[in-house]
Amino acid sequence: MAKGSSSLTEADVAVVFEALVDPIRREVLQLLGDGPRLAGELARASGVSPSVMSRQLRILLQAGLVSAERRDDDARLRAFRLRPEPMTTVREWLDELQVKWTRQLDSFKTHVETEHRS
Amino acid sequence: MAKGSSSLTEADVAVVFEALVDPIRREVLQLLGDGPRLAGELARASGVSPSVMSRQLRILLQAGLVSAERRDDDARLRAFRLRPEPMTTVREWLDELQVKWTRQLDSFKTHVETEHRS
Repeated sequence: MAKGSSSLTEADVAVVFEALVDPIRREVLQLLGDGPRLAGELARASGVSPSVMSRQLRILLQAGLVSAERRDDDARLRAFRLRPEPMTTVREWLDELQVKWTRQLDSFKTHVETEHRS
Repeated sequence: MAKGSSSLTEADVAVVFEALVDPIRREVLQLLGDGPRLAGELARASGVSPSVMSRQLRILLQAGLVSAERRDDDARLRAFRLRPEPMTTVREWLDELQVKWTRQLDSFKTHVETEHRS
């Protein structure tokens, strides 16, 4: 449906916006901003059950916004780590809109100035 | 659920992310980046029915991302215009995460350098 005029693909943008729409997933990303965390720690900090957290972490993994790694001291425990790179697509989408908006304002300003002179 | 440590309120952030999760709404915002448009023009450009477009525009109005104004030449026609201001909450949310991430990398770097010296 949506056609991008830039190098952003609609699919890339959609994946990240869909991951970021959920308040628990946004909270997890902010928690991981402070450092890697175990799933149980994230569940406790967010006040959700381990199964809810597990589902949210799977979505974040699929979107590429987090990575998971085994801990050396216990292979059953997985530490989740932030991968902020995909979020640049959101910034680029916002930048694209901002460029158009600035151009629109400039063009309006030129129009008003031309009217004023005539 | 999610607690912000900054001046961003979770409710403000949620409204904008919920508005931006839909591909048609994202396309409408990019179209309005080029200038004000009538609902019918937006429906045609996006390839959706007038009723679908009307619903999406209502959500964008509620989120404060567009404004609507009567046209002088026909009161039945409403021109929609971009209001990019609420999108700064998304940028601020991303910036907050970026600050934490940079701090995390710096702290890791310091840790590695200390280990190396000892």
